[in-house]
Amino acid sequence: MAKQNRLLDAFKQTKYQVIGHGSRNVQTLIDSLQTVDGQQDSDVYGKGAIIEGFQTKIAQFLGKEDAVFFPSGTMAQQIALRIWCDQKGIGKVAYHPLCHLEIHEEDGLKTLHSIESVLLADRDRLIEFEDVLEMDEDVSCLLLELPQREIGGQLPDYETLESISALCREKGIKLHLDGARLFEILPHYQKTAAEICDLFDSVYVSFYKGLGGIAGAILAGDTAFIQESIVWKRRHGGDLISLYPYILSADYYFHLRINKMEQYYVEAKELAGMFNRCHAVSTKPVIPMSNMFHVHMELPKEKVEALFLELYESTGIGLTSSVREIDDQSCYFEVSIGDQYGSIPKETLDRAFNLLDVRLAAEH
Amino acid sequence: MAKQNRLLDAFKQTKYQVIGHGSRNVQTLIDSLQTVDGQQDSDVYGKGAIIEGFQTKIAQFLGKEDAVFFPSGTMAQQIALRIWCDQKGIGKVAYHPLCHLEIHEEDGLKTLHSIESVLLADRDRLIEFEDVLEMDEDVSCLLLELPQREIGGQLPDYETLESISALCREKGIKLHLDGARLFEILPHYQKTAAEICDLFDSVYVSFYKGLGGIAGAILAGDTAFIQESIVWKRRHGGDLISLYPYILSADYYFHLRINKMEQYYVEAKELAGMFNRCHAVSTKPVIPMSNMFHVHMELPKEKVEALFLELYESTGIGLTSSVREIDDQSCYFEVSIGDQYGSIPKETLDRAFNLLDVRLAAEH
Repeated sequence: MAKQNRLLDAFKQTKYQVIGHGSRNVQTLIDSLQTVDGQQDSDVYGKGAIIEGFQTKIAQFLGKEDAVFFPSGTMAQQIALRIWCDQKGIGKVAYHPLCHLEIHEEDGLKTLHSIESVLLADRDRLIEFEDVLEMDEDVSCLLLELPQREIGGQLPDYETLESISALCREKGIKLHLDGARLFEILPHYQKTAAEICDLFDSVYVSFYKGLGGIAGAILAGDTAFIQESIVWKRRHGGDLISLYPYILSADYYFHLRINKMEQYYVEAKELAGMFNRCHAVSTKPVIPMSNMFHVHMELPKEKVEALFLELYESTGIGLTSSVREIDDQSCYFEVSIGDQYGSIPKETLDRAFNLLDVRLAAEH
Repeated sequence: MAKQNRLLDAFKQTKYQVIGHGSRNVQTLIDSLQTVDGQQDSDVYGKGAIIEGFQTKIAQFLGKEDAVFFPSGTMAQQIALRIWCDQKGIGKVAYHPLCHLEIHEEDGLKTLHSIESVLLADRDRLIEFEDVLEMDEDVSCLLLELPQREIGGQLPDYETLESISALCREKGIKLHLDGARLFEILPHYQKTAAEICDLFDSVYVSFYKGLGGIAGAILAGDTAFIQESIVWKRRHGGDLISLYPYILSADYYFHLRINKMEQYYVEAKELAGMFNRCHAVSTKPVIPMSNMFHVHMELPKEKVEALFLELYESTGIGLTSSVREIDDQSCYFEVSIGDQYGSIPKETLDRAFNLLDVRLAAEH
């Protein structure tokens, strides 16, 4: 724990960081309010120009009939699945074993909604068409997360998505998109958000991943679905009297960064290449499919941390603020490209990676 | 509906308003950030100085061991009741028929937590000691709302509170305080928040009623209870990556207004007196017990709206933005005193009430 905090502290003190948009400090909110008219009325329990205007804008961007702003994706997705389960009368949904609902939500779906999960595919690979075809359980909904964050942000072929979507429609299974990082995958697929969302019955997107907002989510779908989700939003305690601090900042960062996703994607591929040229390092996926990937290292976590501490200090380049153990001999960390990568001088970065490789070769 | 909106519009255009702190516009947030250091780290999933510091401060103010910040009271209270029900193994709680959980939350408590409610007392009066004594159902928790908002903010005697608290402890029933307006009742009881909270096992307070913040709530209790509530907060989708926009503003308005509650209370009693001296008008309670009361009028809603429209225009004084029908012959509205009342010139206010009384006498 002490070493983990030392790495975080050292990372914060580096001059250049390969990941993210910079510190998530209060300035993030202040910046987003600089050009905002203070005389605008607050939203009030889901009504008002600020929330309705933003919902309409994102619904259009996603090509969906309607949309509603939620304080969190956790809330939005549980509610989406609950609505589909209630509609079909079967309290069962299918998703990946490393789905956010399965591993990060303290079993909210099960304890609040009594919905069972059917885990498709192995932990370390994507859900494929065959997994859905061969699923023998009757479920109300299949959730796909694009990209699959916990395995480095992998994506299926677009044709696989299309065939899974067609199969679900045929089988009477609703298809829900966990699009926490949907904006980030558009360059890889070379599709619009609306084209991808058209394959799904309901979609959740987040405003604080690649966009770098403060918090908040949109759930989109047809009008009947969205109207029902608003009732559940109140039940969950998500229908706050005012959500505008999140909405105004989401709107600001949406416009600031929505057209930078191609740049982040190109940079992620470049950076992954630099990692892959080092001894004992491989990225997952080898070629990133969005702005993110995982870096796997064939060295004990403690050795990597010690090595990074030295690297950060001697080069001023920060690679990650935390490393996670896989086993005694290996560890990994997540990389998400944001605004910071582009401002690092190429020679400084090259020097850091050369040094990293020399050190890794000596250790390995 | 059109007339309702006309009243709201006319109210907004009045020079002086007897209720509230002023427009709930975006400036409310901007003002609260004026002196904030933008370089402070964001809270991250419930951790960090901003959230932990505020929780500690409010826990101390309430005299409780621990506290946690929630995006909404709806979420905080359902969770409090769920924990007490799970602990006792009985999914049943008792509260007033006009409890927020019963009438404003789309049955979240029932649909998400499978908790049944036992309604104590009649709709138009407070829960008394005898109601609890004679309750034959076995419940895990009794919720008391102080003041009882939907009946004009009435309060039981302090001795009644003490005896209900003692009885609940004797009967093994947890006592939860819906303290959405707890700060507002301290002048009436002449007690500290900690003295009142000491009678309860768990307490919820709100930051956007009398304090005039943007949104958000605190749930307080002993450490084991609070730790459990944090798990449920995540399940509900309330453990946002960052809650600081609400926390910073809650903190700002807490300090700005916590010592104004006595003033609001005195002013509420003065204003209620002015209403009660008019024909066909009575306040509930006759003498307010906090900064709020209800104004009942023995006239059809439409007549009152027409009369108010004229009054607002000719005097520049706004009394309410909406009137609610009781039956064909009567209606009511809610009054909550905030910063605005104190800045109205006495003679302007007197003139408006004189005119109101003349008009009411003519109508009645």
